[in-house]
Amino acid sequence: MNSISLVCFLLWTGASSFKFEELTQYVNTHEEEFIETLRKWVAVESDSSDVAKRPDLHRMMDMTAEKLRLIGGTVQMIDVGTQASPNGSTIALPKVVTAQFGSDPSKRTVCVYGHVDVQPAKKEDGWATEPYELTDIDGNLYGRGASDNKAPVLAWIHTVEVYKALNIELPVNVKFIIEGMEETGSNGLDEMIEDQKDIFFSDVDYIIISDCVWLSKRPALTYGTRGNCYFFAQVEGPKKDLHSGVYGGTVIEPMTDLIGILDKLISPSGEILIPGIREAVAHLSDEEWKMYQDIEFDMESYKKDIGMDKLMYSNKVDLLAHRWRHPTVSIHGIEGAFSSTGTKTVIPAKVIAKFSIRQVPKMDPATVEKQVTEYLRSVFAKRKSPNKLNVTMVIGAKPWLADPTHPLFEAGKAAVKRVFGTEPDLIREGGTIPIARTFQDVTGKSIIMLPIGGFDDGLHSQNEKISRYNYIEGTKLFIAYLNEVSQIKKY
Amino acid sequence: MNSISLVCFLLWTGASSFKFEELTQYVNTHEEEFIETLRKWVAVESDSSDVAKRPDLHRMMDMTAEKLRLIGGTVQMIDVGTQASPNGSTIALPKVVTAQFGSDPSKRTVCVYGHVDVQPAKKEDGWATEPYELTDIDGNLYGRGASDNKAPVLAWIHTVEVYKALNIELPVNVKFIIEGMEETGSNGLDEMIEDQKDIFFSDVDYIIISDCVWLSKRPALTYGTRGNCYFFAQVEGPKKDLHSGVYGGTVIEPMTDLIGILDKLISPSGEILIPGIREAVAHLSDEEWKMYQDIEFDMESYKKDIGMDKLMYSNKVDLLAHRWRHPTVSIHGIEGAFSSTGTKTVIPAKVIAKFSIRQVPKMDPATVEKQVTEYLRSVFAKRKSPNKLNVTMVIGAKPWLADPTHPLFEAGKAAVKRVFGTEPDLIREGGTIPIARTFQDVTGKSIIMLPIGGFDDGLHSQNEKISRYNYIEGTKLFIAYLNEVSQIKKY
Repeated sequence: MNSISLVCFLLWTGASSFKFEELTQYVNTHEEEFIETLRKWVAVESDSSDVAKRPDLHRMMDMTAEKLRLIGGTVQMIDVGTQASPNGSTIALPKVVTAQFGSDPSKRTVCVYGHVDVQPAKKEDGWATEPYELTDIDGNLYGRGASDNKAPVLAWIHTVEVYKALNIELPVNVKFIIEGMEETGSNGLDEMIEDQKDIFFSDVDYIIISDCVWLSKRPALTYGTRGNCYFFAQVEGPKKDLHSGVYGGTVIEPMTDLIGILDKLISPSGEILIPGIREAVAHLSDEEWKMYQDIEFDMESYKKDIGMDKLMYSNKVDLLAHRWRHPTVSIHGIEGAFSSTGTKTVIPAKVIAKFSIRQVPKMDPATVEKQVTEYLRSVFAKRKSPNKLNVTMVIGAKPWLADPTHPLFEAGKAAVKRVFGTEPDLIREGGTIPIARTFQDVTGKSIIMLPIGGFDDGLHSQNEKISRYNYIEGTKLFIAYLNEVSQIKKY
Repeated sequence: MNSISLVCFLLWTGASSFKFEELTQYVNTHEEEFIETLRKWVAVESDSSDVAKRPDLHRMMDMTAEKLRLIGGTVQMIDVGTQASPNGSTIALPKVVTAQFGSDPSKRTVCVYGHVDVQPAKKEDGWATEPYELTDIDGNLYGRGASDNKAPVLAWIHTVEVYKALNIELPVNVKFIIEGMEETGSNGLDEMIEDQKDIFFSDVDYIIISDCVWLSKRPALTYGTRGNCYFFAQVEGPKKDLHSGVYGGTVIEPMTDLIGILDKLISPSGEILIPGIREAVAHLSDEEWKMYQDIEFDMESYKKDIGMDKLMYSNKVDLLAHRWRHPTVSIHGIEGAFSSTGTKTVIPAKVIAKFSIRQVPKMDPATVEKQVTEYLRSVFAKRKSPNKLNVTMVIGAKPWLADPTHPLFEAGKAAVKRVFGTEPDLIREGGTIPIARTFQDVTGKSIIMLPIGGFDDGLHSQNEKISRYNYIEGTKLFIAYLNEVSQIKKY
C-alpha cells in the first residue's frame, strides 16, 4: 500500500465510523443545557465599543478560555496590546483566546474564527426584551450577540464538546481563534495573525468563519464579501460657526458646497457617477446569472423586512448582483452641521460628509481613492468656491472571494445535505468581513464562511435573535462538517 | 397762549433745562459702580435654554425687579405660565418684569424692552475667561450676556437712576418690559403683550429695543430686521436604519434623495432657485443704494472677523443688501443621519434636513411655505423615488421695517450727535428679532432699535464682551435720547 492509498484507506475508515446519529442525539438531549450556556454568555455586556464595559469584555474572554479548557483544549490568551481611550489614556485590549484540540499530523487541521464581543444595545433603543437577558419567544432566542456571534461560537465549542463527551475521536484537529474587538475593527488582530503565521497557523489547513447569516430559510455557504472604501469629504469655510441671520447672504456656505458635491456622486436611480468605478467591475457572466437565478430569495420578504414597497431593482438576479458583486455608494451623514432635534440658525463653519463605496473584485482601493478624490476636486473646482475641500479615504478594505467549487465548499454542501436534506445556496455577503481577506493574504490558507444564523436575525439591530432551530441544527451541521472535511484528500 | 403754543413752550423749557453735563458727569464718576452691577448680573447663569438653570433665571428676574424697585419704579412681575420640560413635566416660565417711572400725561411715554436671559456658555467651548466671571481685558468686559443683553438693560436702568440720584425730573415717562426667555423664543411673551395691549401699553408712545449691535465703530440706529421661515424636509424610506454593506445597492437611500433636493435650493453662487422667492423682493432703489454707500463698513475687517478671503459679493452695497434686504437660504444640518466623529456604515432610514430662508419686506411666510413645499415636491417627484418626502415650515417670522425718517429716528440721530459727535449709520439687521414685529402688529406703536453693543461683541459666540466705552457712553446716549424724545411734538 503506497502512502496515498494509505491515506485514502484511513479516510474511508474514518468516514465509515462516523457516529452521526449518536453525536446528534447528544445535541438533542443537551439542547436546554446549550441554551443555558448561551444565556450566560449573552448576559455579559461585552460591548467592545464602550471602554466603560471593558471589564465585562475581559470577563467574556476569560469565560471563553475557561469553557475551552474545561473540554480539554490547550488554551492560550494572547496579549494584543492597548488602545487609546477617549480620555487620552490607554486601555488594555481584550486578549485573543486560542485553543487547540488534537495535533495528529495525519489529520486535517481546521481553525475556527469567531468573536464574543457585541454591538451596543439598550432597551430604550426599541428592544421588546431586555437585550442582555436571553428571552425565548416562540422558539426565537432574543438577546444582543445571540446570533452575532455568541451562538455560532458556542455551537463550534459544543461540537468539540459532544465528541469529547461521547469519547469519540475528533476526525480533524480543531483550533480556535476567538477575539473580542470584532465590532470595532478587530484592533490588534492583524498583527497577531502576522506574528502567529508560522506558529499557530503553521499546521492549519482551512479557516472557517461562521460570522454571517443565511440568505433565506435555506442554509447557505458564503464564498465572497464586498470590501469598503470609506471617505471623509470636508468643506471648511469661516473660522467659526456663524449666525445665519447675521451672516447669511454674505458668505458661500460650506454646507451648500458639500451638498453640491455629494449630489454628484450618484444618480437618482443609484448609478455611480464617479468616472472609472463601474468600468472596473467584471460583467455578470451567464454562469453567474444562472447561479443567482437558482438561489432561494424572496423579494417580497426582503421588502417586508426593510419596509419598502419598491427596491432599486425589480428582479432577483439584478438585486442580488447589486447587493454582492457591484459597488455601491452610501452617504452616511455629515459631521459638524446641526443634527439635533429642533431648530438652530447656524451656518456651520466646517462640515465633513461620511460616505463609502463597497468594493468588489477587480476594484483596487488605491485606484478608487484616486478616482474619488480627483472627481470631487474637479466638481468642487467648478463651483469656484472660496471654501476649502479636503477628501480623505479612512478605510480601504478589499473584497474577499473564494472558489465555491473548492473541496472546502463541497464538504459544506455534503454536510448541509446530511443535516438539512437540501442543497445550500452559494451566496456572497454585501458587507465586509476584513478578517477573511487578512487570513487569506497573510496565511495563504483556504477559507470558508459557514453561517448558521437566520436571514432575519437582525445583527446590529434592535431585537437581535437566533432561533433554537438554527442554534441546535447549526451545531449538528458543524459536527457533520468536521467529518466531511476530514475526508478531503491530502495531496 | 393756545394749547399747541403751551405744549411748545413746555417742550422748549424742557430742552433748555436739559442738564446733560451734570447727568453724564454722574455716569463718569459712577463707572466702576455700574461695572460692578454688571459683574453681579453676569455672574448669574440665567441660561433660559437649560431647565436645570431655571432657579438662576428666576433669581435674575428677581434681581432685575429689585433693582428697578430700588430706584423708585412701580414694579410688577407678571406670570406668563409654564413650559414643558424635557422629562415631560411642566416648569414655570420666568416672570416678565414690568416697571413704570412717571405717568405725567403731558410727557411722552417710552417703553424699553430688554432681556436678562443668556445663551449657554461653558469654558470648554473655547472661552479665554470664565464665561460667568466678568473679566476686564484692555477695556473689554468679557462675560456671557455682557452685550446680549445685560449691559444694555443696565444702561437703561442706570439712565433712570442717574436722573433720580441727581433729583432731576425725567423728561419722559419710562416703562420697562424685561423678559427672561428671549434666547429660546420668548415663550409666553406674545400672549402677555396681547393681554396688556390696552393696559400696560395704553399710554406708551414708543418702544425702544437695544438688543442689537453697531455695524462698525460708528454708532448706529437700526430700522429693520429680516424675518425667517424655517423648514424641515424629511425623507423617509426603510422602516429601520440599514447596514450599508448588507443592503447597499438594493434600496434607494433617503440620504441620496435628500441631498438631491437640497442641492436644488441654491446655485453655487448663492442664487435662490425656488421660483417666486427672488421675484417678490423689491429692487434696490437709487436712494437706498446711496444710503448703503454712505454707511461705514469695512469689508476687510468683516472678512478678517469671520476668516474668509472671499465673500459672496465683492462690493459693500451688494454685500450689505444681501445681508439685510435680500432673502437667503442656509442649510443648517441633517437630523437622523450619522453625525458623530469616526465611521459608521449605516443607511439612515429617516433623515430631516433643516434649512431656513430669511424674509424681507414684500415676502409673505405663507406664500414662501407654499413656494418651497411645491418646488421641493416637484423636484422630488422627478427622482421617481419610492421614499416619502414631507416638507413642513416650523417657524414663519415676518421681517420688521421702520421708517428711518420717523421723528423717533431723528431723535436718535440728535442723541448720537450729542454724545459721539458724529452721525449714526442707519442700518438693518440680517437676523430676526420677532418681538419687534409683535410689538408693531399688536400695539401699533412706533419702534426704534437703539444699539450700544459693538460690532465685534460676539453675541452667541465664545468670548462675548462689551467694551467699557460702549457701556458707559451708551448710558450717556440713552440719557441724551430720552431728552430728544421728550421734544417730539405731540399732535
